[in-house]
Amino acid sequence: MSAFFASRWVQCPPHVEDDQAGLPDGFRAGAVAAGIKQSGVLDVGLLVCDAPDAVSAARFTRSGVLAAPVIVCREHARLDGLRAVAANAGNANAATGLPGLDAALAMQEAAAAAAGVDSDRVAVASTGVIGVPLDPERVCTGLARAAGQLRAAGDEAFTEAILTTDAFPKRASLSVTLPSGVVRLSAQAKGAGMIEPSFATMLCFVQTDAALEPQTAELLLGVCVKRSFDRISVDGQLSTNDTVILQCSGASGVRVAPESEDELRLGEALDALLRMLAVMIVRDGEGSKRVGRIVVRGGHDEGVERAARAVANSPLVKTALHGADPNWGRIAQAVGAALRGTAPLSVDIAIEGIAVCSDGAAVAHDVDALNAAAAGVEIEYAVGLPGDGSETEVFFSDLGHEYVSINAEYTT
Amino acid sequence: MSAFFASRWVQCPPHVEDDQAGLPDGFRAGAVAAGIKQSGVLDVGLLVCDAPDAVSAARFTRSGVLAAPVIVCREHARLDGLRAVAANAGNANAATGLPGLDAALAMQEAAAAAAGVDSDRVAVASTGVIGVPLDPERVCTGLARAAGQLRAAGDEAFTEAILTTDAFPKRASLSVTLPSGVVRLSAQAKGAGMIEPSFATMLCFVQTDAALEPQTAELLLGVCVKRSFDRISVDGQLSTNDTVILQCSGASGVRVAPESEDELRLGEALDALLRMLAVMIVRDGEGSKRVGRIVVRGGHDEGVERAARAVANSPLVKTALHGADPNWGRIAQAVGAALRGTAPLSVDIAIEGIAVCSDGAAVAHDVDALNAAAAGVEIEYAVGLPGDGSETEVFFSDLGHEYVSINAEYTT
Repeated sequence: MSAFFASRWVQCPPHVEDDQAGLPDGFRAGAVAAGIKQSGVLDVGLLVCDAPDAVSAARFTRSGVLAAPVIVCREHARLDGLRAVAANAGNANAATGLPGLDAALAMQEAAAAAAGVDSDRVAVASTGVIGVPLDPERVCTGLARAAGQLRAAGDEAFTEAILTTDAFPKRASLSVTLPSGVVRLSAQAKGAGMIEPSFATMLCFVQTDAALEPQTAELLLGVCVKRSFDRISVDGQLSTNDTVILQCSGASGVRVAPESEDELRLGEALDALLRMLAVMIVRDGEGSKRVGRIVVRGGHDEGVERAARAVANSPLVKTALHGADPNWGRIAQAVGAALRGTAPLSVDIAIEGIAVCSDGAAVAHDVDALNAAAAGVEIEYAVGLPGDGSETEVFFSDLGHEYVSINAEYTT
Repeated sequence: MSAFFASRWVQCPPHVEDDQAGLPDGFRAGAVAAGIKQSGVLDVGLLVCDAPDAVSAARFTRSGVLAAPVIVCREHARLDGLRAVAANAGNANAATGLPGLDAALAMQEAAAAAAGVDSDRVAVASTGVIGVPLDPERVCTGLARAAGQLRAAGDEAFTEAILTTDAFPKRASLSVTLPSGVVRLSAQAKGAGMIEPSFATMLCFVQTDAALEPQTAELLLGVCVKRSFDRISVDGQLSTNDTVILQCSGASGVRVAPESEDELRLGEALDALLRMLAVMIVRDGEGSKRVGRIVVRGGHDEGVERAARAVANSPLVKTALHGADPNWGRIAQAVGAALRGTAPLSVDIAIEGIAVCSDGAAVAHDVDALNAAAAGVEIEYAVGLPGDGSETEVFFSDLGHEYVSINAEYTT
């Protein structure tokens, strides 16, 4: 029984339990309202690992336009030994030039002083509006105050402090039974718009009290990000600030050796955790009412990837999903557009297991059953292309009036 | 003075006049309500060139999923000598398999009989819903009736018969003064959604009474399509049915020789005509209130093209355009996402000539002037990338509530 694993697409592994018990041993977090957001809500968070030999791994956006905090992480932090994470919402500190870089460095320094660690052991992350100067004073004062709030149950406040247009927080605490003992795993994520990560995503911070070698942390995070945040799209918009960080305190005393059964089981737990968070981000896609999953099978990795992304990002497919309209012609169109120059292309399409198109042509089907299936909350589309051996999936949100309202009526 | 050239981005050349005088000599058109659309409006059109030695050129969608009429045109028509065009709205005859191919062939046969020409001299075109069988009886009966309606002023009815979600018809009649004499040029286009053509677009039929060799028709149409319909996007969605056809009757007696001043002037007129129609299609983008033009300059053809498409198709940029919000951070984000892996990328951004970002960082600007500029009907965005020598443009519509309503609430 788990409140967290609430999608039929992500199973809770049998050795994983949703314990809702805060951060793993060795971690504390806190957050304050520092005035970055005008609304006066929590907007600066600090998360600290108390273990001097903490091990970590990180992934960042591949955008050509990198936010200042991403640059600071990549150039001024020991990414395999991060002790602390400092994050703010309300301002992305992106396209802010040298003053922005200085602000991100000041943020790193202030967090280091507040956490009592070296500055190269601190990762910084920001999310919010692009192109507006970030006031370093406010962030730094906020971080000093946040240090006074640090506690094991501080993940709830920390999660709130990183929200932007999110309609709900995305957070989990799991206990994971490994052959060598029980470890805990927690994560805090945000994201609802400007979402189509590539090798990383939005902001997501993951903690475990398992003891991992840096290579193991790197491997597990890399594989699991590829299967989770790299497979979602709200609006096809890669951000300037996407950041995922995994920190390991080792405080459980359970050592996860490379290529061990422990590594496999921890990997399964991390995989389920990140996939569920990824689906939650899509479900929170700005104004989203329904979530789609497109699965494309065929003979070419590149072809199935392009077709899946084209369907997931088609405003025609997304509006049809929103309107509970099983308009599969738009799926055929999106696939054909993604694979231009390949006509005549044999395409099979099924919606919720109901075949609607075979070898490029409509097939008779139960229209009432199809309409009923399209009215669900999670809709699965399957596309078959010629050949076999390759398969991919993308989770995507619909496109509704609220997305337009959120993005046309406010500067975000 | 021209009612047709209503965009500051497309100038009416001095030797061109908007004469609103119907089809050029040698052409007749007609349309009927054939019951393809349930609303009972005009939905089948026939356009005939009376010259036995008519010369033509054509461009089609490059989608991997081709509609039946596109396949029939490519495989069963003499594209350099088309006499007639048969078109219907209300059904795209796409993803309809062999019955769809048979219906398109029947449509070609019926138009040939109605026009009194060989069937390989007939192009067919369809637009409307995908994946629904097209009733060949209705179309063929309609074409026979349309033959009784053929007249020089029939372009108005023909244009109406090809509309789908279009809010207004797109049609022009021009007179063009060439060194060797005066010729006329007319065109009928449709398109409002599923619009991001590649080497062709939607439906557009162009007629002239100038006498051109097939190679000249091919060259002029190819160049002008690349500069018009290939540079627009409503929703980034390449259609299965895009078709552009140029027919030349020669009835004016004015011969346009290859590489002549006549060819140059006629090319300028055709260029202005197709560019204006392209902007009209964007302006009629489903639910669109404002039109954007993104111009990207830099050192690499591929880079400027990718950046321009990314901006034009970003739902974040498009909703900001809709909301008159000069949110240039979203332009920086879209460019960075298009050129991933290139950080640090030097980006300059200007909106309506007001510089807002230089070398990747915000620059001080007159906020009131910027807000006023963003509230116009045509908004120009300029992006500068490193290097020079390459430049491209894309015209795009905004994304508003009506796009969602049109596409979420109706099967189109």
